[in-house]
Amino acid sequence: MENFTLYNPTLYEFGRGAEEKTGMLTFLMGVKKVLIVYGSKYVKTNGLLERVKMSLDSIGIEYAELPGVKPNPNDDLVYEGIRICRERHCDGLLAVGGGSVIDTAKAIAAGTPYQGDFWDFFCGKATVKEALPVGVVLTIPGAGSEGSGNSVITRTDGMRKLSLRTDSILKPRFAVMNPEFTFTLTAYQTAVGVVDMMSHIMERYFSTTPRVEVTDRLAEGLLMALIAEAPKAMADPTDYQARANVEWAGTLAHNGIIGTGRREDWTSHAMEHEISALYDVPHGAGLAVVFPAWLAFMAHHKPSKVAQLGRRVFGVEASDDRTAAIEAVASIRAFFSAVLRMPVNFKQLGIADPDIDTMVRKLHENKGEKIGGYYKLTAEDTRQIYELMLENKQV
Amino acid sequence: MENFTLYNPTLYEFGRGAEEKTGMLTFLMGVKKVLIVYGSKYVKTNGLLERVKMSLDSIGIEYAELPGVKPNPNDDLVYEGIRICRERHCDGLLAVGGGSVIDTAKAIAAGTPYQGDFWDFFCGKATVKEALPVGVVLTIPGAGSEGSGNSVITRTDGMRKLSLRTDSILKPRFAVMNPEFTFTLTAYQTAVGVVDMMSHIMERYFSTTPRVEVTDRLAEGLLMALIAEAPKAMADPTDYQARANVEWAGTLAHNGIIGTGRREDWTSHAMEHEISALYDVPHGAGLAVVFPAWLAFMAHHKPSKVAQLGRRVFGVEASDDRTAAIEAVASIRAFFSAVLRMPVNFKQLGIADPDIDTMVRKLHENKGEKIGGYYKLTAEDTRQIYELMLENKQV
Repeated sequence: MENFTLYNPTLYEFGRGAEEKTGMLTFLMGVKKVLIVYGSKYVKTNGLLERVKMSLDSIGIEYAELPGVKPNPNDDLVYEGIRICRERHCDGLLAVGGGSVIDTAKAIAAGTPYQGDFWDFFCGKATVKEALPVGVVLTIPGAGSEGSGNSVITRTDGMRKLSLRTDSILKPRFAVMNPEFTFTLTAYQTAVGVVDMMSHIMERYFSTTPRVEVTDRLAEGLLMALIAEAPKAMADPTDYQARANVEWAGTLAHNGIIGTGRREDWTSHAMEHEISALYDVPHGAGLAVVFPAWLAFMAHHKPSKVAQLGRRVFGVEASDDRTAAIEAVASIRAFFSAVLRMPVNFKQLGIADPDIDTMVRKLHENKGEKIGGYYKLTAEDTRQIYELMLENKQV
Repeated sequence: MENFTLYNPTLYEFGRGAEEKTGMLTFLMGVKKVLIVYGSKYVKTNGLLERVKMSLDSIGIEYAELPGVKPNPNDDLVYEGIRICRERHCDGLLAVGGGSVIDTAKAIAAGTPYQGDFWDFFCGKATVKEALPVGVVLTIPGAGSEGSGNSVITRTDGMRKLSLRTDSILKPRFAVMNPEFTFTLTAYQTAVGVVDMMSHIMERYFSTTPRVEVTDRLAEGLLMALIAEAPKAMADPTDYQARANVEWAGTLAHNGIIGTGRREDWTSHAMEHEISALYDVPHGAGLAVVFPAWLAFMAHHKPSKVAQLGRRVFGVEASDDRTAAIEAVASIRAFFSAVLRMPVNFKQLGIADPDIDTMVRKLHENKGEKIGGYYKLTAEDTRQIYELMLENKQV
């Protein structure tokens, strides 16, 4: 274990009817006028937006609205949100939606009190020292943004997907989580979220830090819980208990606890970001393609932890690490493909002729010559991993 | 899963040298003068107290001192601390020690701004609405008080051990955790802490709430990590990594995460409190006697979850629940006895002739006619469980 600081001040209000507390929680974060950020019409048609507004009204909190956030959100709405917050004197954000909505709200929260361009924070030119408080009403679990201090936005100029990570200043002050509002997610949307969650866990799991038994066991536990509950949520979208377990696992996967005291490896996410920046595929579907390929590469180059995953999570029995690792890759690919019905290669992802050259070039432009924590990857290595995502190249 | 609210605003500063941040963290909680509460001479002789004071000095924070807290702390020092805080205008507490020290500091924090007797909070006569902020420098892991809103104090008048549970008002604002300061704990002290941690996990694990796969898996993961790391910490007291894993598991066992969305069962703790109120035994040692007896009773009356514990944590293979549960009890008793070298009956605990009548009477006086969440226990049942702690009655 390494030294760490953990500060998780998000209040989680979880369960049926939780959205009724939105007004009180917004009040408690000291806000008088919120900008409500949301995406699809869904939150309008299912009545959630109306219930949130009623809750705000009941306690006398004013609001402005910013609809229209799309998956893989870009900077247009961030600029628009900053403009509205300044003009209409909003002193807080309320994100009603999933990761894209929350990430947009966070970028607005950081950008509003800042004199320069909000991209400065994402490019490392400036550090967020002040931000409006953000509250969340979660409707799409997966991204884990409701418990993290991070935001991912696509820069329209150049179509680069960039991440901002903060310790705690952008962590939501509260997250309202009623699993009933995930009942309308299709099996596909559910699966996309679950792959994102499992990836968040595995990016932390694959660490070079020795002696991290506590967080290893927690990570394995979350993976086993998702493997048990996700298929139930897909089979019966109104299975409240399956929805609740999946939603809570998604938060715990990404709010920092299972990463305490260990180096993490975010290569698979970075590799996927290059895919979805070019092709605008759902992040989770992209990860279902990337992760098995990354794992397959590791099974041959550094199998130990892949083998541990296989033995503890998938019941692999092989005593030899390489064999166990290869079986682990097969197990997880089968789970993604046969159970979650996710794409596991470029073709299934709808990309007939992937521009691997551009992905490799942009990846290393963004992240450096060698990338990765668990294993340092050169451009030749990442090319090999992208090629493992071609239909005929699967291990 | 049931509805829940989780709010964990404690900042954890974990690792080597963490104590050097004490001054800054005290400053950040808005305190100008702290009352430092501690127990044994240990924190003086090993230099920790001196380093904490240097850290406070460096940032200009004044302090008063309250030494002398003992295990199973009583109200004498709480009254004394309240008096000092009022007279010397301390606006915060700094607990340097383990659970007894932290619990004393919390009681002082709640009692200082309160007009009446602080026992009102512990007897349910009043709710804590205001409290001084509490910071912690942890030296003895186990009680988990560094991450909880709870306090347990023994009332000198009547020798009743009483618990106060709050949602978050008494949760420490920060916890400084340097595993090096646990190097001097003996194997016995280490084991006592580990039993306390495992009990905190199991009190949450034994739930009647259905469909709690996420928290079940997290609880099982923490137990497996402790079973792996505790013996290493006992064998080599300066094994930093074992100490670090054990210490962090102790916090996660009790800061509320693994109890989210589930009813809990604190019967074993309540049964142990009656033992240590009468005989002043270490809480963890008492739990090593109580828990196997409670589990043995459950193996015969409600074996399902005991069986799951056996299968998932101890590798029990029996397909029949009752058989698996009985094997689970044997496994955990063997771990307590042979590995942790803890007492597992009254005689080994040093109580030759336990006053079971008084324990049963006081237990039900304190907790009601029927007690327990996982299984409702009458006085006849709890008597049977106490009798299972007699040397010749072990199952």
